[in-house]
Amino acid sequence: PQAALAVASQDNTSLDATEPASSHSPLFAAELERAREFVDGMITEGVVVPVPKDPGGGYTHEQHKRNFRAIYQGGQLYRITGEERYRDYVRNMLLEYAELYPTLDDHPAQANQNVGRLFWQVLNDAMWLVHAVQGYGDIRDTLNAEDRQRIDDNVFRPAVHFLSVESERTFNRIHNHATWATAGVGMTGYLLGDQDMVDRALLGSDKSGETGFIRQTELLFSPDGYYTEGPYYQRFALLPFLVFADAIERNEPERRIFEHRDGILLKALRTTVQLSYRGYFFPFNDAIRDKSLRTAELYEGVAIAYGQTRDPALLSVADFQGRTVLRPNGALVSRDLAAGMAEPFPFRTLLLSDGPDGDEGAVAILRQGPTNAEGEPATALIAKNSSQGMGHGHFDKLAWQLYDNGNEIVRDYGAARFLNIEAKRGGRYLPENTTWAKSSVAHNTLVVDQTSHFGGDAKLADTLWPTQLYFSDAPGLQVTSSVMDSAYPGVTMRRTWLMPTIAGLEAPLVIDLVHAQSDEPHQYDLPLHYSGHIMEFDFEPISNTAERPVLGSDNGYQHIWVDAEAGLQDGRGALTWILDGRFYTYRFAGNGPLTAILGESGANDPEFNLRREPLIMLRAQREGEASFASLLEAHGSYDGAAEQTLDSRSLVSDLNHQRIDGMDLVRLTLKSGQRFAIAVSHNPDPATAHSVTLDGESLEWDGFAAVIALPGEDN
Amino acid sequence: PQAALAVASQDNTSLDATEPASSHSPLFAAELERAREFVDGMITEGVVVPVPKDPGGGYTHEQHKRNFRAIYQGGQLYRITGEERYRDYVRNMLLEYAELYPTLDDHPAQANQNVGRLFWQVLNDAMWLVHAVQGYGDIRDTLNAEDRQRIDDNVFRPAVHFLSVESERTFNRIHNHATWATAGVGMTGYLLGDQDMVDRALLGSDKSGETGFIRQTELLFSPDGYYTEGPYYQRFALLPFLVFADAIERNEPERRIFEHRDGILLKALRTTVQLSYRGYFFPFNDAIRDKSLRTAELYEGVAIAYGQTRDPALLSVADFQGRTVLRPNGALVSRDLAAGMAEPFPFRTLLLSDGPDGDEGAVAILRQGPTNAEGEPATALIAKNSSQGMGHGHFDKLAWQLYDNGNEIVRDYGAARFLNIEAKRGGRYLPENTTWAKSSVAHNTLVVDQTSHFGGDAKLADTLWPTQLYFSDAPGLQVTSSVMDSAYPGVTMRRTWLMPTIAGLEAPLVIDLVHAQSDEPHQYDLPLHYSGHIMEFDFEPISNTAERPVLGSDNGYQHIWVDAEAGLQDGRGALTWILDGRFYTYRFAGNGPLTAILGESGANDPEFNLRREPLIMLRAQREGEASFASLLEAHGSYDGAAEQTLDSRSLVSDLNHQRIDGMDLVRLTLKSGQRFAIAVSHNPDPATAHSVTLDGESLEWDGFAAVIALPGEDN
Ligand SMILES: [Zn+2]
Ligand SMILES: [Zn+2]
Repeated sequence: PQAALAVASQDNTSLDATEPASSHSPLFAAELERAREFVDGMITEGVVVPVPKDPGGGYTHEQHKRNFRAIYQGGQLYRITGEERYRDYVRNMLLEYAELYPTLDDHPAQANQNVGRLFWQVLNDAMWLVHAVQGYGDIRDTLNAEDRQRIDDNVFRPAVHFLSVESERTFNRIHNHATWATAGVGMTGYLLGDQDMVDRALLGSDKSGETGFIRQTELLFSPDGYYTEGPYYQRFALLPFLVFADAIERNEPERRIFEHRDGILLKALRTTVQLSYRGYFFPFNDAIRDKSLRTAELYEGVAIAYGQTRDPALLSVADFQGRTVLRPNGALVSRDLAAGMAEPFPFRTLLLSDGPDGDEGAVAILRQGPTNAEGEPATALIAKNSSQGMGHGHFDKLAWQLYDNGNEIVRDYGAARFLNIEAKRGGRYLPENTTWAKSSVAHNTLVVDQTSHFGGDAKLADTLWPTQLYFSDAPGLQVTSSVMDSAYPGVTMRRTWLMPTIAGLEAPLVIDLVHAQSDEPHQYDLPLHYSGHIMEFDFEPISNTAERPVLGSDNGYQHIWVDAEAGLQDGRGALTWILDGRFYTYRFAGNGPLTAILGESGANDPEFNLRREPLIMLRAQREGEASFASLLEAHGSYDGAAEQTLDSRSLVSDLNHQRIDGMDLVRLTLKSGQRFAIAVSHNPDPATAHSVTLDGESLEWDGFAAVIALPGEDN
Repeated sequence: PQAALAVASQDNTSLDATEPASSHSPLFAAELERAREFVDGMITEGVVVPVPKDPGGGYTHEQHKRNFRAIYQGGQLYRITGEERYRDYVRNMLLEYAELYPTLDDHPAQANQNVGRLFWQVLNDAMWLVHAVQGYGDIRDTLNAEDRQRIDDNVFRPAVHFLSVESERTFNRIHNHATWATAGVGMTGYLLGDQDMVDRALLGSDKSGETGFIRQTELLFSPDGYYTEGPYYQRFALLPFLVFADAIERNEPERRIFEHRDGILLKALRTTVQLSYRGYFFPFNDAIRDKSLRTAELYEGVAIAYGQTRDPALLSVADFQGRTVLRPNGALVSRDLAAGMAEPFPFRTLLLSDGPDGDEGAVAILRQGPTNAEGEPATALIAKNSSQGMGHGHFDKLAWQLYDNGNEIVRDYGAARFLNIEAKRGGRYLPENTTWAKSSVAHNTLVVDQTSHFGGDAKLADTLWPTQLYFSDAPGLQVTSSVMDSAYPGVTMRRTWLMPTIAGLEAPLVIDLVHAQSDEPHQYDLPLHYSGHIMEFDFEPISNTAERPVLGSDNGYQHIWVDAEAGLQDGRGALTWILDGRFYTYRFAGNGPLTAILGESGANDPEFNLRREPLIMLRAQREGEASFASLLEAHGSYDGAAEQTLDSRSLVSDLNHQRIDGMDLVRLTLKSGQRFAIAVSHNPDPATAHSVTLDGESLEWDGFAAVIALPGEDN
C-alpha cells in the first residue's frame, strides 16, 4: 500500500511517463511547464531547510511553504516525466527534514492560535503535511529501504504524532483546521499502511466517530453545502476535504465517501462557486477580499469533482481558472476542455440554508440580468441571514451586499488584514479587524443604540441566528425575507429585499424594507456602505468641510469620519453616486424624521490599516416601531471615451412607504408620470388574496408580494 | 467640385458601393455594422431637430450631437452601401436644419466662452459643421437643385458666416477652437466650390496667413509635434487638423500639406500616441482622465496618417483601438491589419520640446522595462518641464508622474470636472478645478510659501517657462534635468530625475533631486501624490485620528486633510505603500530638518466634487538653499490568490545626499550591504572628468551623471 497515494484513478486518462509533454492538452501542458519552472528553480537553489524562526510572511515561514510546494510538485513531475532529478530532489529535501524535524520544539514565533513546529501555527504544519505526503507518495516506492525508513520515522510519523496526539485539541475540533490535520494524518496512514492513523483521521482520536473527518463532513456543511464560516473559509477547507476524500475513494472505495450525506462534498464544491461574483468570493466574515476561484485549493477541488461527476459546467470553472492539477483528474479536465465539452456554470438565484441541519438561518442569493461567458448574470444581491460562523464571524445579522455591472455596489468590508505582509503586524489580523471589520456598523445592517449585535459577544452570537421567513426566485419579483429577534434584547428586526422588474426603470432595482419593533425607545442606525463617487443628494446637510469629526467612540463608530449631516423632518431623501460608468440612486423613507449622515471609514487609524470607503447612514430615534424603506435604482451610463452620458439622474420622482396591518406598501412615482406599487403582505401563502385602500386607491394582490401598476400622473 | 469631399483618395482601396459588406475585412465590417445600428436607430426615431435650449449634457445639446453623428455616418453609409434610405435621411435632416438655422440667435444657455447657435458654445457649432459637411458631401451631388440650394444657403453658408464672420475672434485665434472652425469652414468651401471660404480658412479672415489653419500648424505644435495645451487637447485638436489636411490634400495636392513644416501633422499624430500609458493620455492640465487612444478623434487620425505613411506601427495602434473609420483610409487600415502587417508602436524614451520654436521648455518621457504586446515598456516617468499651455494650463512647473506595472504610481489629478454630467454643475469645470486641480500643491512640484506658481496668474504663466538643461536616454541611466527661475520671484528651482539600473535592486528606481535657491527665507513644500495604501513609515508622526484638520486656507491647501505630521530633525524618512500587488518605497533626505505631512485631498468640498487621494508632503523652512533628494523604489510583490508575498519591505537601508560644489552625490546602502553612489555633476559634457572625496571615499566619473559601485558593508 505504500504507493497508494500515487496510484491514478481507474479512469483511462493517460499519464504515461514516456508520453512527451507536448502531447498533453494545453491546460495540463501549461501546468507542467509552470511546475517545471518552479521546481527547476528550487533545484538550482539547492535544498534549503532552515531552522524555524519567523512568523507568517517571514523568511523561514515562506521557505517552508516553498519547500512543501516543491515536494508536492516535484513528486508529480517525477511521476509524469520519469526524470530522476525530481525524485532525487524530493528525497534529498525530505532527508534534510529528517535531520531537522526531530530537533524541533514549539515554534519560537508562537501565534495566538495553537503553536506549530515548522510554522508559527499548527494549521500551517498540517498544510505542510497534506502537501508533503502527496509528494512523498509519488517517490516513496523508488527509495532504498534506509532512506524510506529515515523519512518515515523522522518526518512523517513524528509529524502525524505532533498533529494528532500532541495537538489533539485541534485535531478533534469540528473546524477547518482539524480538516487539514485529519487529511494530512489520514493520507500519511494510507501511504505508510498504518490503519490506526487512518482510523483516527476518519473517526477522531478515540475512533468514536464523534469527531474526525467523517463527522466534519456532517457538521461543517449545511444540507445545501454551505460552510458556516463563509465562502473564504469554505474555499480553504475544500482542499483537504476533497483531496483526502479522493484518497479515501482510491484506498477504501467501499466507504463511498463521495456519496456520503447525499453527496455533500461535491455539493459543497458547487456551492462554493455559487458564492462568488466575477470569480471573487462574497467577503463574508474575516475574508481576504482578493481570493477568487483562481486559487490553488479550488484547482484541486474542481479536478477531483470533475473526475467524480464529469459535469461539463465544472469545465467552464476550470476554464475561468486557467489552471488545473498534475493529477489524472487534471489531465481529464484539460483534455475535455480542449475538446470543447465545457458548458456555462449554472449561476442562479438560490437559498442556502446554514447549520448542520439547515435550520440556523440562510444565505439568500438573488441573481438577474444578462449572463456573461461564464454563465453569470450581471446582478447579484446577497442577503446574509446566516449564523455567526464561529470565531471569524462578523456581527452582521440581516446584512446585505449588491453586485452589478461587474462591481460591488453595496459593500462588505471583509477582514482588516494584510495577509503575509510583515509590516502589517506580521500579516496577522489587525486590531481594526475587531474594532471595525467585525462590528455591526461596518456592515449594511441595522445597529441599535450604537452597539454591535449580541453586544459584540462572539460566544453568545454563535448560539443565535435569524429565521428565513420567505424566499422566491420568481422572475420579475425575486424576494427574500427574514427576522432576527435576538441580536438586541427586546428588539425584533425584520428585513425583506425585493428585486422587481418595473416598466420604465432599468435593472437592477432593489426594494429594501427594514422594520424594527421594541417596547423601549432606541436609536436605530442603518448604514449603507456603497462604492462610488457622489453625484448629488436632494437634502441640504451641514458639512464638516474644514474639520472632520468622528461619529462615536467605540463599537466601530470611532472609525467613521463624518463629512456631512442632514436632518430630514419628513424622513425622506435620495443620494446618487457613479461607479464605473453607471449611476445608482439610493432613495429612502423612514416612518418619522431621519438624520442622514454622509461619512467615510478610516478615522482613528494611525497605522493606516483601514481602507477609506464611503457610507450613508440613516439614523432614527424611535419608540415602538422603526421602519426604513428604500429603493436602490441603477440608471444610465457615462462613457468618458465617447463623451456620452445617459440618464445621470434618477428616473424616479417619489417613493412613499406605508405600513398597514403589518403589510408594507411602497409606491413609486416615475418622472415619466407612471406609478407603481410594490405591495408586501408578508404572508407566504400564494393563494391568499390581499387588499388595501391607500389614499383612495385600492391595491389588490395575491400572495407574499406583488408589483402593481397604478394610474399614472400627467407629466 | 461639389463632390470634392466625397472623392476617395487616389489609392486603390475598393469602396465600391456594390461590394457586399461581408467582403470587408473585420475591423471595417464591424465599423459598418456599428454605423448601421446607430443610423438605423436614428432613422427609426425620425428626424428630430429641436430648438436649442440646454447646456452641455442636456437634451437639445445631446440631440444635436447625435444628429451630426447621424449626418456624418449616414453619408458614409450611403456612399458605401448605396442604400437610398441613408441619403434620404441625411437630406431630410439637413432640410430640417435649413428650417431651423435661419431662425437662430445666440444660444440661450450661453457658456462662459463665446456663445454658439446650435450649442452653448461656438466650439460645438464648429464640431457640428466639421461632421455635417462631410456627411453632406457624401450625398450633395445626388440632390435635386432645389434641395441643394436650400441646404447650401440656409444651413452651410450661414453656419460658415456664423463661425468665420460673426465669431471672427474665435476664428482667428491660434487655438484648437479655431482649428475646428477653420476646418469646418474650409471643407465647406471645398464642397461648395467657394474659394473665398477656403482661403479664409487656410490663411485667416484677412487672408494674410497671420492666422488661419496653416499658421495654426506652425504655431500650435512644437517642432517635435507637441501641442502646448497637452495631450488631452492634442488628441481633440488632431481631428480637425488631420481631417481638413486630408481634404486639402485631395483638393489642392499642390499645397503638400502633409509635408508642411517637416511633416508636422503626421509627427503630431505619432507624438500623441507617445503621450500615453496603457492607452490613456498623460492627464496634463485640464484633462478628463478617462480619455484614451480609443477615442473618435484618433480613429480618424490614425487612418489618415496610415493612408499617408503606410507605417505598420500605426496598425498596432488601430488594433489597440479596435476601431477605424468608414473612409477609404479606414478600409486600408482594416485590410492591412487583417493581413497581419501590424508592428509594435515604438514607444520610447524621448524629449518633446514645447513652443513653436521648441524653446519653451519640454516634456521628458523616460521609459524602461519589458514591453507588452503593444510595444510599450512597463515603466514611464514623465517630467513636465513645459510651458503653461494657455487657459487650461496648470501651475505645475517641473512636476512629474510615474507609471509602472500598468498603474499611475505618482499621480496628476487632471481636471476637476464631470464631463456631461448634469448634476455636476451641468458638466462644466467645477469650482474645484480652479481651487484644487490647477493649483501647484495639487501637483508633484515644489511649492514656495504656500502659493501657486506665478501667484496663480495664468496670463503671467503663459509668458514664462522652464529651461530643459539635460536629457539622456542612455540605457541604465536615463536622465532629465531642468531649471525654472521665474515661478516665484527670486527663487530658482532645479530638478533632476534619474532612472538608474542598480544591481540588487528591482526596477524602476527613480532618483529625484530638487534644489531651490533664494536670497530670502522661504517655506518649501514638496508634495508627492501617490496611489496606494500605506504599508509603513519609519517616522513617528502625531496623528489626527479623531478630528482631522485642513492644511491651509487657500491656494489648494484648503482641500488637503492632514492625517499625520512628523518632525524629522535629520530630514530623513521613508514611506512604503502597496498598489496592485507591488510595493513602492519613497525614501527622502533634506538638507536640514523636514516636516513630513501625510494627507489626503477632499477637504472643503461640500459637494463631493473631488476624488480623495493620498499624498505625502515634505516641508522645509530654509534660508538660501533648500534641497530634497529622494529615491522611489519599486520592490517585491503581493499575490493574494497565491498567498505569496515577496520583498514587502524596501531593499534599501540608507539614503545619504550631499551637495558639493553644485554636484549632487546620493549614496545608497542596500540591506544586502552593497553600496552605490549616484553622482551628478550637472555638466552636460560627456568628456569632462569629475572627482569628489566624500567621507574618505573618492568618487570619480565622467559626464553629467553616473552610478558608481562603492565598497560594500559587511552584512
Ligand atoms: Zn463582514
Ligand atoms: Zn494638473
